[in-house]
Amino acid sequence: MRLVAVSKIENPQKYLSLRNDYKSHIIVQAIMTGGIVPDEVQKKLSEEGWTRTGYTLCFDCMKGRSDLIAKPPVGAFLEDIASFFGGEQAQHTFGCRAAQFAVMKTASEMTREDGESKFAPVVLADPLCHYTTALAAEAAGLQLTEPPHIGHPEYKVEAEGFRQKIEEIRRKTGKLPCLVMVTHVDPYHGNVGPAEKVGVIAEEYGVPYMINAAYTAGVMPVDMRDFKADFLTVSAHKSMASLGPLGFLVTRGEWVEKVFRCSKIVAEGTGRTWKNKILNVFGCSIGGVPLISSMYAFPYVIERVKKWKTELEKTQWFIQQIEKIEGVRLMGEKPHKHHLMHFETPVFWEISQHHKRKGFFLADEMISRGIVGLQRGLTKNIKLSLYGLGWDEVKRVRDSFYEVVDRYVKEFKLDYNVP
Amino acid sequence: MRLVAVSKIENPQKYLSLRNDYKSHIIVQAIMTGGIVPDEVQKKLSEEGWTRTGYTLCFDCMKGRSDLIAKPPVGAFLEDIASFFGGEQAQHTFGCRAAQFAVMKTASEMTREDGESKFAPVVLADPLCHYTTALAAEAAGLQLTEPPHIGHPEYKVEAEGFRQKIEEIRRKTGKLPCLVMVTHVDPYHGNVGPAEKVGVIAEEYGVPYMINAAYTAGVMPVDMRDFKADFLTVSAHKSMASLGPLGFLVTRGEWVEKVFRCSKIVAEGTGRTWKNKILNVFGCSIGGVPLISSMYAFPYVIERVKKWKTELEKTQWFIQQIEKIEGVRLMGEKPHKHHLMHFETPVFWEISQHHKRKGFFLADEMISRGIVGLQRGLTKNIKLSLYGLGWDEVKRVRDSFYEVVDRYVKEFKLDYNVP
Repeated sequence: MRLVAVSKIENPQKYLSLRNDYKSHIIVQAIMTGGIVPDEVQKKLSEEGWTRTGYTLCFDCMKGRSDLIAKPPVGAFLEDIASFFGGEQAQHTFGCRAAQFAVMKTASEMTREDGESKFAPVVLADPLCHYTTALAAEAAGLQLTEPPHIGHPEYKVEAEGFRQKIEEIRRKTGKLPCLVMVTHVDPYHGNVGPAEKVGVIAEEYGVPYMINAAYTAGVMPVDMRDFKADFLTVSAHKSMASLGPLGFLVTRGEWVEKVFRCSKIVAEGTGRTWKNKILNVFGCSIGGVPLISSMYAFPYVIERVKKWKTELEKTQWFIQQIEKIEGVRLMGEKPHKHHLMHFETPVFWEISQHHKRKGFFLADEMISRGIVGLQRGLTKNIKLSLYGLGWDEVKRVRDSFYEVVDRYVKEFKLDYNVP
Repeated sequence: MRLVAVSKIENPQKYLSLRNDYKSHIIVQAIMTGGIVPDEVQKKLSEEGWTRTGYTLCFDCMKGRSDLIAKPPVGAFLEDIASFFGGEQAQHTFGCRAAQFAVMKTASEMTREDGESKFAPVVLADPLCHYTTALAAEAAGLQLTEPPHIGHPEYKVEAEGFRQKIEEIRRKTGKLPCLVMVTHVDPYHGNVGPAEKVGVIAEEYGVPYMINAAYTAGVMPVDMRDFKADFLTVSAHKSMASLGPLGFLVTRGEWVEKVFRCSKIVAEGTGRTWKNKILNVFGCSIGGVPLISSMYAFPYVIERVKKWKTELEKTQWFIQQIEKIEGVRLMGEKPHKHHLMHFETPVFWEISQHHKRKGFFLADEMISRGIVGLQRGLTKNIKLSLYGLGWDEVKRVRDSFYEVVDRYVKEFKLDYNVP
C-alpha cells in the first residue's frame, strides 16, 4: 500500500472553506423553485441528526430493502406517494432519470419476448421531452422518435401527431412502439403536454404509457389515472420540496410486477441469488437524507398543490408585467399554465453588446439585487420561475428587471420603451 | 384535474413528527461507521444553507453537467478524487451500485462489437461480492460466475481460482469474460480479497478489471494502480464520511473515454442530440447535498486513511476481547485486516431461546446501552464495526457485550464461561 496519490492533492483544506453565496437569495431558477425545502424541514434534518450518517434511515432495516423499512415509515410513505398520484405502487429512485430508466428497461424487455413481440425497440416521446428521457432510452438500447410541435413561439404539441407516428412506426417495422411517453409539462417552455389525449391513443393501440411529471408532480394536482398512464415518473428535488437526488416511480396494474420485479440472476459458483432485491432500482435505492427530507416535506406538498391556482395567478401577473418591456415575449402557450416561464428578451441581448461583462451582466445584476437563478451568460432568452414566492418577492423580481432595463437603456441610449 | 387521491392519505401530519431515536447513540452498524459525517461538516451543511434546495450545487452550473461546475469546485474535486485513488478521471454517481452498473454496461458493450468480440457476456467476480455487483451484471444483461472460497470459517479466496475460471469460460465459450472483478474487502467477513494477484492475471489475459472498494476507499489507503485496475468503484456514504446516495467511479487509460462516453442518440423527429451528456451517469448525477458533504469531508478522509493502522489496532483488540466469551469466534481471516467484523455468537443464540424478546433481545439491550447498529433479530451471528470510535467508546461496546452476556448467563443459568 502506498500513499503517493494523496501528496498530489493541493491544499485539501480548501474544501473546508466552501461557502454558499446564495443562502439568503430569492431563488428563481426554474429547476429549483419546486425543490426548495421548507425551513421547518431543514431545521428538523439538522436537529434530529439525520445528517449524521450516509445510511441515515437504515438503522431499523430488517429486510435489506429501504422500501420495506417501518421505522421511519418508508413503506407507508411509498404507499401514500402512490395514492397521492393515483397509482398502486411506488418506489423511490435516484431521481426521475433513474425512474425513467427503469421504465425504459421494462419496455425494452418487452421487445425481446421470444422474438415474437409486437413491440419494436422504439420509444415514441413528445418533441419537448427532457434529455433524461432520451438518455434513459439510449441506456436501455431503444431508439427515440417524436411527433412534431407547432414551432415558434408556442411550441404546442398535438395528440394526433402521436397517432400518426404510431402508424408510421407500424408501417416501417410491422410493430408498435414499446413505450409512448409525454412530458406532463415540458422543461423548455412550461407547456402542458397533451397527456390525456395521448393516453386515449396509447390505450387504443395497447401500448404502455409513461408520463414524466418531473415539473408537475408535487406542485400541482397530478393523478395518473387522468392520463390512463401506466407509469408516472416524479422528481422529488425538482417538484417535491426535497433534497436530491431523489425521485419516485409510480405504477399500477400489470406493471407493478414487471417494473418492480426482483432479481433472477444466479451466481454460477456459489449459487447465490437475491430474490428479494428489486432489479430496476439497483436492489435498493438507499434514500438517505433526501428521502427523509421528502417525508418531512410531504404534508407541505399535499397542502401546496391545493394552492396551485394562486401560484398560476402570480405567474400570469408576472408575464403581463414583464411583457411591458418592449420586445419581451413569453415563449410557449398562452395563457400560461405552469410556473416555468421562458421569455425572449431582445433588450437584454442588446445591452449585453454594450456591457463590459457581456452576457453575464444580467445574472450579475440580479444577484446583486438578491435574486439568483438566471442562467449566467444568457440574455437573448431567459428562463425563470417564481413558484412559492410571496407577492412581495414576486414584485421585487419584477422591479429588479425594470430597474436593470431602465438603467442600461438610459446608460447605453438604446431605443427601447420601458415601463 | 381531481384531488381524490389526497383524501386517501391518513394523517399526513404524522410525517412531521418523525424522530431519529439514535441521534446520540454510538453507531456500530458495519455499513454506517465509514459514512459517519464529521460534526463540523454537519454544522456547515446547515449553516451554509446547503439543505435549502434539491439542486443545491447547481446555481452556477454553466454547461448542464455537475462535473463541470467550478463553483463550488466540483470539477477540481473530481480530479482530486481520481488522484487520491490513483486514477485519471472520476465521476460522481448515485452510489457505488450505479458506478458498478456503468462499468458493467461498458463491459457488456464490448461483447457486441461487430459480433467478432473476444469477450463473452460473463462477469467473473469473487464469490464474496456484494449483491449490487450481481444486480449490476443482471441489469447489464451479463451472467455472473465465481471461483470458490475456502469455506467456513475463513472464507478466503485464492487468486488462482480466477485463472481456472477464465480457462473454464474460454473452454465453454471460446471467449474471455468481459470483466473480472474483485471486492477489495468483502461485506460478509471483512476479508481483504486477492486484488493485486488477480490484477496480474487480468492483465495477462487482457480482460478489463474492476475493484469494488465500497468498504475500503476512504477508510484505508487505496491506490487502483496497485491492483492494475481499470475501474475502481467507491461508496461515499459507506466509506467517505458522506451523506448518501453518493458514489464515485474512478478509471484510467482507454476506459476514460469508454465508460464516460457521451450520448449518441438522435431524436428522430426534432433531430435533437445531447452530445455533452455522459450516458452512463444518466447525463449528470446531480450530486446535491451528498456531494457537498463529500467535499467538506474530503480533508478529514485524507487524514483518516493515514491512521488506518490505529483503527486496525482497535479492531484487533476488540476481537481478542470478545472472543473471551466462550464460543464466540471471528469469521473470516485472522489476523483481521479490516474494521468489518463478523462473529459466531452461540451464547447469544442460546439466550434468545430463553428470552421473551427472542432474537431481538440483543439489539434491544445494546440500544438501551446507547449502542445502535446490530441487526435486529440476529443472535447466532453478529456483524459490527468500531471504525472511527474513540478507545473509550470501543471499551464501552466491549463492556456492554460483557454485561449482557453476564446478566443472561446468570439469569438463565447457562453453562458458558464469561470473562
